[in-house]
Amino acid sequence: MTFAPGIMKGVNAAVLTPMNRDLTPDLVRMTDHCHWLLDNGCDGLGILGTSGEAQSFSTRERMEILEGLAKAGIPMSKSMPGTGAAAYVDTIELTRHAVELGAGGTLVLPPFYLKGVSDDGIFAAFDKIIEGAGSSALRIYLYHFPQMSGVPFSHDVIERLVTAFPETVVGIKDSSGDVANMLGMVERFPGFAVFPGSEAAFLEVLQAGGAGCITAVSNVGSAMAQRVHAAWTENETVDEEANNIILALRDVISRYPLWAALKAIMARHSGDADWEYIRPTLVPLDDSARAELFAAFDDIGYALPPL
Amino acid sequence: MTFAPGIMKGVNAAVLTPMNRDLTPDLVRMTDHCHWLLDNGCDGLGILGTSGEAQSFSTRERMEILEGLAKAGIPMSKSMPGTGAAAYVDTIELTRHAVELGAGGTLVLPPFYLKGVSDDGIFAAFDKIIEGAGSSALRIYLYHFPQMSGVPFSHDVIERLVTAFPETVVGIKDSSGDVANMLGMVERFPGFAVFPGSEAAFLEVLQAGGAGCITAVSNVGSAMAQRVHAAWTENETVDEEANNIILALRDVISRYPLWAALKAIMARHSGDADWEYIRPTLVPLDDSARAELFAAFDDIGYALPPL
Repeated sequence: MTFAPGIMKGVNAAVLTPMNRDLTPDLVRMTDHCHWLLDNGCDGLGILGTSGEAQSFSTRERMEILEGLAKAGIPMSKSMPGTGAAAYVDTIELTRHAVELGAGGTLVLPPFYLKGVSDDGIFAAFDKIIEGAGSSALRIYLYHFPQMSGVPFSHDVIERLVTAFPETVVGIKDSSGDVANMLGMVERFPGFAVFPGSEAAFLEVLQAGGAGCITAVSNVGSAMAQRVHAAWTENETVDEEANNIILALRDVISRYPLWAALKAIMARHSGDADWEYIRPTLVPLDDSARAELFAAFDDIGYALPPL
Repeated sequence: MTFAPGIMKGVNAAVLTPMNRDLTPDLVRMTDHCHWLLDNGCDGLGILGTSGEAQSFSTRERMEILEGLAKAGIPMSKSMPGTGAAAYVDTIELTRHAVELGAGGTLVLPPFYLKGVSDDGIFAAFDKIIEGAGSSALRIYLYHFPQMSGVPFSHDVIERLVTAFPETVVGIKDSSGDVANMLGMVERFPGFAVFPGSEAAFLEVLQAGGAGCITAVSNVGSAMAQRVHAAWTENETVDEEANNIILALRDVISRYPLWAALKAIMARHSGDADWEYIRPTLVPLDDSARAELFAAFDDIGYALPPL
C-alpha cells in the first residue's frame, strides 16, 4: 500500500503524560520520554490521546503541553496530537492550535458525550471542525474508540467524510479491537491510513495494507514494534521474535488498568516513582498488582532500551 | 420526607439552551424561557444539563451563559447548573464559578470519557472537585446518566461520598430510567434528595420520599408537573389528570430525538423558528418528523401556557 505524501505511517506510541505530585504535567520528563521513543523505534508520536489522558486535561492545559513539547524541540511534523473533545468548539480550538504548531496530523474523536447520535450529526460536527480549523495543512485521523467514546464511526460516515474532505480526512486510528472492521476499511478506502490501536491487530492489518500502529504498549515496546514494521515493509518478511514480544507485552500489561501499568513500568525503569502519578478517575496500581505486573513482565525476558 | 434547609426540591426543568444561527447561545431568549418556566410551575431550573447541551459548549461559554442569566435577573438560588466535564479540572472551574454566582446547587457528572473506572477513581475525582471548589456553600447533586456518561454511580460510591462529604453531596438526579435504583437510594440514604429525570418515575419516587424531578419535558409540561407535585406534597393526593398529561407528553416527545423535539415545540409555540438551532452532533427534526410530532402533541389536548 502506498500513501500520499505527508500521510503519517509506521510505529507511533500513544504517548503517556508524566505528571508532578500536584498532577500538573511534567514537561521535562515528557520531553525526555518523547526523545527516547523517537530514538527507539517510533516513527511518530500520538500525543494526548487516551493514553496521554487528554480528556483529563482542560483545553488550555492540552495546548500548553503541546506548546511545551514544541519549544523543547520535539518535532511537531512527527506528532499527531489528539484534538477531540466533548464540545466541537473545543475541538476547533485545539485543532487550529495543533496545525499552527505544525503538527503532522491530528487524531480526532467525535464529540463523545451524547450517545446514539446520527451519521448526519457526526458529519455536521466534522464539517464545523474542518471549517473552523480553516487550514489546508490540516490532516485529520479519525479516532474510533467506541468502548470509550460510545460514538462509533460507521463506514458510511467515513465514506461521506473522505468524499467531502479528501485532502483533510486521511486516516483513522481504530482502537475497537475489531480486526474485521480495520480490514474492511483498508479494502473500502484505498490510500486511507488505517492504524490499529493494539499489537494484536498490528501485523495482520499491516500485511493487508494498513499504515502502521498507534498503541499504548509502544511506550515500552516500540523497538520491537519497529522490527515488525521494518521486516514487513522492507522485505515482506515476518519478524516472529519481535512480534511475539509485543504480543506478550500487550498480554501482560492489559491484565491491569493499562495506563497505570505502563506508568508503573516506566517508574521502575527510570527509578523515578513520580512516573506513577495519574489523574482521576484513573488511579495508580496497588502494591500487589504492581508486584504481579513486574514479575509477569520480567518473565517475558524483554529488556527496555536504556534511558 | 423532609430535607435539610437549602436542599432543592420540587419541579425543575432541564432547561433548553436557545441559540442563534451561528449556534452561539441566545441569552435573551434563554432568560425569557427561564422566567416563563418559573412563572409556570417550576420551583427550580436545571440549567446546562444534558438538555441544555452543556457538553457541546466550552467551559468559557458555559460560564458566560450562567453569568448572563444571573445578570438578567434569573434567581441563582433556584438554579442548579450542570458543572460536570470530562476533565475534573474543568469541573472545578465551573463549580467554583457557579458557587460564586450563588447557585442553589450544582449538578455534577463524573468525568465521563474513561469507562470501566473504579469506585476509588470516582471518589478520587469528587474529592479533588470538592477540595478544588473550596466552599462550604457548595451543594452537589450527583448526575447519574449511565446511558450518556457511561460512568454509573454505584450505591457504594454514593455512600462513600455522602459519608465523607455529608454537607456537600446532598442529592442525585437519576436519568437512568431505573425506578428500582431510585427507590433503593431513597431508602438507603435518608435526607438525600433523589430527583428522577423522567415523568415516568416522578410520581412513584415522590410518593416513596423523593425530592421532585428534573426533566427535559418540564420545558413544556412544568405546569402539569407542579400540579402532580403539589397534590402529593400538600394533600397526599394524586392528580391523575395532570399526571396523565405529563406521561403523554413524555411518550410523544420521546419518540423523537428528545431535545430537537422540544426545541421544535418551542419554535412553534413562540413563532420563532430560531428556537430549532441545536449544536451537532444533534440535528433539528426533519419536516416529516416535525409534522408527525406536532400532530401527536396536539392529540394530547394540552395547551402550553401563553408566553
